Amino acid sequence: MSPDPVLDRLAADEDAALARLMELVRIPSISTDPDYGADVRRAADWLAADLCAIGATAGLVETEGHPMVLGEIGAGSPHLLFYGHYDVQPVDPLELWDRDPFDPAVEDTGSGPVLRGRGTSDDKGQVMTFLEALRAWVGVHGAPPCRITVFLEGEEESGSPSLVPFLERHRERLAAADIALICDTTLAGPDRPAICTQLRGLVGEEVTLRAATRDLHSGTYGGVAANPNRVLARILADLHDATGRVTLPGFYDGVPETPADVLAGWDSLGIGAAELLGEVGLSHPAGETGRSLLEMVWARPTAEINGMTGGYAGPGFKTVLPAEASAKVSFRLVGAQDPEAVRAAFRAHVADRLPPDVEARFADHGAGAASVMDTAHPAFTAARAALDAEWPHPSVFVGGGGSIPVAGLFQSHLGLNSVLMGFALDDDRIHSPNEKYDLRSFRKGARSWARFFAEIAG
Amino acid sequence: MSPDPVLDRLAADEDAALARLMELVRIPSISTDPDYGADVRRAADWLAADLCAIGATAGLVETEGHPMVLGEIGAGSPHLLFYGHYDVQPVDPLELWDRDPFDPAVEDTGSGPVLRGRGTSDDKGQVMTFLEALRAWVGVHGAPPCRITVFLEGEEESGSPSLVPFLERHRERLAAADIALICDTTLAGPDRPAICTQLRGLVGEEVTLRAATRDLHSGTYGGVAANPNRVLARILADLHDATGRVTLPGFYDGVPETPADVLAGWDSLGIGAAELLGEVGLSHPAGETGRSLLEMVWARPTAEINGMTGGYAGPGFKTVLPAEASAKVSFRLVGAQDPEAVRAAFRAHVADRLPPDVEARFADHGAGAASVMDTAHPAFTAARAALDAEWPHPSVFVGGGGSIPVAGLFQSHLGLNSVLMGFALDDDRIHSPNEKYDLRSFRKGARSWARFFAEIAG
Repeated sequence: MSPDPVLDRLAADEDAALARLMELVRIPSISTDPDYGADVRRAADWLAADLCAIGATAGLVETEGHPMVLGEIGAGSPHLLFYGHYDVQPVDPLELWDRDPFDPAVEDTGSGPVLRGRGTSDDKGQVMTFLEALRAWVGVHGAPPCRITVFLEGEEESGSPSLVPFLERHRERLAAADIALICDTTLAGPDRPAICTQLRGLVGEEVTLRAATRDLHSGTYGGVAANPNRVLARILADLHDATGRVTLPGFYDGVPETPADVLAGWDSLGIGAAELLGEVGLSHPAGETGRSLLEMVWARPTAEINGMTGGYAGPGFKTVLPAEASAKVSFRLVGAQDPEAVRAAFRAHVADRLPPDVEARFADHGAGAASVMDTAHPAFTAARAALDAEWPHPSVFVGGGGSIPVAGLFQSHLGLNSVLMGFALDDDRIHSPNEKYDLRSFRKGARSWARFFAEIAG
Repeated sequence: MSPDPVLDRLAADEDAALARLMELVRIPSISTDPDYGADVRRAADWLAADLCAIGATAGLVETEGHPMVLGEIGAGSPHLLFYGHYDVQPVDPLELWDRDPFDPAVEDTGSGPVLRGRGTSDDKGQVMTFLEALRAWVGVHGAPPCRITVFLEGEEESGSPSLVPFLERHRERLAAADIALICDTTLAGPDRPAICTQLRGLVGEEVTLRAATRDLHSGTYGGVAANPNRVLARILADLHDATGRVTLPGFYDGVPETPADVLAGWDSLGIGAAELLGEVGLSHPAGETGRSLLEMVWARPTAEINGMTGGYAGPGFKTVLPAEASAKVSFRLVGAQDPEAVRAAFRAHVADRLPPDVEARFADHGAGAASVMDTAHPAFTAARAALDAEWPHPSVFVGGGGSIPVAGLFQSHLGLNSVLMGFALDDDRIHSPNEKYDLRSFRKGARSWARFFAEIAG
């Protein structure tokens, strides 16, 4: 079906669409701060009302925390589950903002007009690309091309405490969908659309070593008493070999080699050390020898020391042998790596390196497997076709170095693949002062969804 | 000359001697706390007055900080320079004391009566063993057996900031002595007197590694950005080989092998792992393979990580790649090891292990060479004879794992060897709540000095 009438409708409605987004951004729905509880609910109400205005059956679903917004519209296959979130990050430090974060305005920048304000990019602007496309489609055709469930969360920026209980309680309804659509990611570049098809998993682990019953003086005991700092340094240094590979036995079990065509697609993005590392003052990829930069970040597992501490770290010097030393270590996982097997291998690695008199205790800081989407689902074909038609450069399947927990939870709790397709840019300053969303992202994002509907409609 | 009349005089004067020590302990001469400045001076005045009462020419010598007490008495050779300190450690945490730390009292314990209070052992009780012996000797003989300079410091517990300037300003007068006597050490056991003839030196060094310009998220950058924690762990782990030897090139230059007879003397002390480590919950010596326990502590150089810190160390977990990580490292030195050569070798060790993008900066936390006394001086023979006559077991030359800076400074600034002879016990709880000094240490300490004078008198 041609998307053109819907694209025309979007063009005609552009000013109103921007006004709606600005109205939503004006609601300071900071989920982590209890002072804003009423505002979070106001944003949920606003969205439920907007869904109803579009023609959906929509309302709030209460949780232990902030409410979920749930809307249903249309009929027929495939059944799409759209996910976004309507809560935003806090705005501190307020003095670094050039304007009131909740009084959004369009600003002209060197690279085009942007809407400046908290949540414009993460995730209110992205959510509204979908709702504007839906509104325009329903306006033109009277109904969406298929059944669509819209699910908007209000706790994404505060750890999603109610998400798993919600998915469990409403599993039958949500798992009835064929595929999830998640609009909370970035373009690969200003002209290059991207679908994120793999996200790394994460194991968080903390180890604390204890030797003597108290801190010791290094004059009296230095050279004869076990020093947990020294044992810990050895344990941590031994996590990698000279080529940067993780040494834990079995660590690479379940790690797939990235297909050559996928690697070629990543190479075509032209993201090298200068692009990825230059902004933070680095220039040399520090990962495994012989791997490309994006492969390191998107497709290879890692072991990283996120924190270590032992003994005296204050000003000056203290000749102490500490009783304890500890480290927080995380592992990013890919493919079919088993988080609990990795955790067990790490604990064995520590145990193997404990000299007499030194004991280790561990704290489990959570685990989640990697997500790899099954891109054979026709929704991926439709999404690529839509994106390729809308943007200057063809779309690319990318990976993500971090985790987007909801994508993993949709897989593990609902058995659903997700099409992660978003229009934000790396310079949108999400979570930071002066967050913005390019009007081009907003406009072409909505057009991309309209084209996607047209592909689905066939 | 027989010491007996002086020993009789000491016995007759015992109650008065205890009363004098208690009077001195009642003065809260905490040198590090400015609130106690007047009390520190009161203690100095008290000691100068007591020296005058004994017959010395004594008074205070002003410094930038607390005053020194200086007294002169007697004539003839050898010229002895006695050193002790009249300041004490703070008393926090006060609630852990069983009594007012500055209201000393005699308590009966399972191992005999002790005087409980701050400074009883460190160092007022020890100083008074010498002054009581001197008082008794002068009381019996009218004058000491030789020229004696008494030098009492008021800043030993607060880093001795005025000591080097004082030694420099009064070098001619102080360096005129033939040998120093320092009474600030322990017995080797309750019945075993000891003379400490070697003290380890110390190099303090801090290294800070910096990679990115800011902390990074391990999702976005993990596996591709240099992690200073990982580099630091490697640097620190590489400081020792599998046998516990320090790997820095040239580190063992100037490290002497301890003579077999000295080692045999140490072995005879019967101080094994249980004795040295059991009290702090350890059981296995952690030093170099093939070295005895006391050798590790007294005669072998070490590298110890006194502190390390990098990234997130708070509650919970943060998937951060820190921009910086740092460690405080100290080296205990023996023999003729050159502190600045060791520092340079450490800095080269770090530089050799820096990958691209990681920079190191260093902070110098001081250095001092090891002290090894020339025990050929006749004062050592006199001291051993005196101790052997007084105590159940013969005296032993021991080492000290820590540094007694004044002994090194007497060597470097005055060219003076020191006889380090003290009567404290390891369980005296110096620097801790409920400090005590055994009355046996006090009585037999004074008697040891009286016997030493008799040996000197010939």
